[in-house]
Amino acid sequence: MSILVVGSVAFDTIATPFGRVESVLGGSASYFALAASYFSEVRVVAVVGDDFGAEHEQVLKAHGVDLRGIERAPGKTFRWGGHYADNVNDAQTDFTDLNVFENFRPRVPREYLDSEFLFLGNIHPALQAAVRAGLDNVRLTGGDTMNYWINRMRAELIETLKLMNVLLINDAEAKMLANETSLPRASRKVLTMGPQALVIKHGEYGATIFFRDGAFGVGSHPFRAPALPIEEVKDPTGAGDSFAGGFMGYIASQGKLNREVLKHALFYGGVMGSFAVERFGTERLQCLTRAEIDARFQLFRELTHLE
Amino acid sequence: MSILVVGSVAFDTIATPFGRVESVLGGSASYFALAASYFSEVRVVAVVGDDFGAEHEQVLKAHGVDLRGIERAPGKTFRWGGHYADNVNDAQTDFTDLNVFENFRPRVPREYLDSEFLFLGNIHPALQAAVRAGLDNVRLTGGDTMNYWINRMRAELIETLKLMNVLLINDAEAKMLANETSLPRASRKVLTMGPQALVIKHGEYGATIFFRDGAFGVGSHPFRAPALPIEEVKDPTGAGDSFAGGFMGYIASQGKLNREVLKHALFYGGVMGSFAVERFGTERLQCLTRAEIDARFQLFRELTHLE
Repeated sequence: MSILVVGSVAFDTIATPFGRVESVLGGSASYFALAASYFSEVRVVAVVGDDFGAEHEQVLKAHGVDLRGIERAPGKTFRWGGHYADNVNDAQTDFTDLNVFENFRPRVPREYLDSEFLFLGNIHPALQAAVRAGLDNVRLTGGDTMNYWINRMRAELIETLKLMNVLLINDAEAKMLANETSLPRASRKVLTMGPQALVIKHGEYGATIFFRDGAFGVGSHPFRAPALPIEEVKDPTGAGDSFAGGFMGYIASQGKLNREVLKHALFYGGVMGSFAVERFGTERLQCLTRAEIDARFQLFRELTHLE
Repeated sequence: MSILVVGSVAFDTIATPFGRVESVLGGSASYFALAASYFSEVRVVAVVGDDFGAEHEQVLKAHGVDLRGIERAPGKTFRWGGHYADNVNDAQTDFTDLNVFENFRPRVPREYLDSEFLFLGNIHPALQAAVRAGLDNVRLTGGDTMNYWINRMRAELIETLKLMNVLLINDAEAKMLANETSLPRASRKVLTMGPQALVIKHGEYGATIFFRDGAFGVGSHPFRAPALPIEEVKDPTGAGDSFAGGFMGYIASQGKLNREVLKHALFYGGVMGSFAVERFGTERLQCLTRAEIDARFQLFRELTHLE
């Protein structure tokens, strides 16, 4: 089944201790779409400028990504520059040129209206809500957000959370959103705000999914997908969006929505995140095979398997 | 089978956002001994002062811990004071009064000479080596260390590492010891220094065990025991020593030494560490039942179990 993703498409300039790349394809929608494309059909709603050429389109088209929802606006594509210090996963932003993204008003093409799965990438919560409002056939809405929206657009974000079935954020964001220092307490609080399930991404340590009591199955036990220790994180950019792509992509590829599907999806999210960071930008996500993906899924599974 | 542990016995004064306790039983040997006592017989080599009363002895004796190796020296017992800031696991030391611990020269009583399992708690590496040297029946030596010894006693530590079969340290210590930023590379380097297995403790995210190729079984795949998200960390003091106690205690309770035993031990280490932090000092470790321990082991196991 198809997933619709709304988010950013950008040109990134990234420096890490392992090198530097300039103006490479990036943005939440690009990472998400590539990661999800190994599992499901993906439709993108985003905006680009007139510097977005056929060669950039081709990266996504080669993976069957539907680009009819990418608006081409006069001006330049969103550009972001950042660097990572030694052994640190937090990006230091060097510049943010919003360009055409500044006035982005997502428009969902008619051909996308039957989408059953939706991912609201990390954009203004009011825009996320607007996209969800126009879709009547959605069975599951996943969403992302960040500290900027949590701090500055709290009221709008609280409204948008009511529209999400699964929220995917990291430890610090969950604690900030709930204003709690304990992760289990933070997760319980977030689960009263709308989402039936909350995925907390722990970076190199994997991810945990918390369920509202009775949502997608019985009880409220959390579940954790551990990640393999990564040999060398070349570039952490897009790891979270790639995680979300693997997670949502796997779910959309399954007929049913239950805990076992969500648990497997959590593993596949970790798998795609772990691939993304092995090379710069979306490079690694462009050239994967499903066999490589399933082999790593198996590795992750064996990583914690007791006889 | 019996485990001999050498380490500190101390009186701790601890402040966390959840309260404050004064001069409670602490030290690496105390946490280790209590945690391990649920699995095996434990023998302690340590030093205390004349302020160490019958009521303190009783805490350990109630768990069958053998105290014949605890030397009573004239003067005061080692005292440590520290506090933890909100949501931070790193202790800020308020005071360290080494007292009788300053001139501690471990002496292994004759009755302990048949010990088959040994844990070298976090003390001067030369003292760790001296204890190991006097024991001829040891089948497995586990050991701990910390940034202080890694930075200041590197040569002595490197010698002592050759005597350890399993080293248990945290992420930062492993990277510091190997002078590497990638955990897999750091672990490979540490595994050339002596230990056949390396346990890296990740705090709330569990622990990973890395094996030297072929050690305790086939291949060199790592294994990870995830930990349950903890409701409320009341006091992180002693979590690492409690982890080591559960890990070594479980191993000593088994007849054989293989990967499956070490993997289960990793889970039991996480279980004991998670109990330790639920209350102040050794309080929680004093009043556990084996049924509670096994129930939590089962929870940890299910936490990552896919159908």
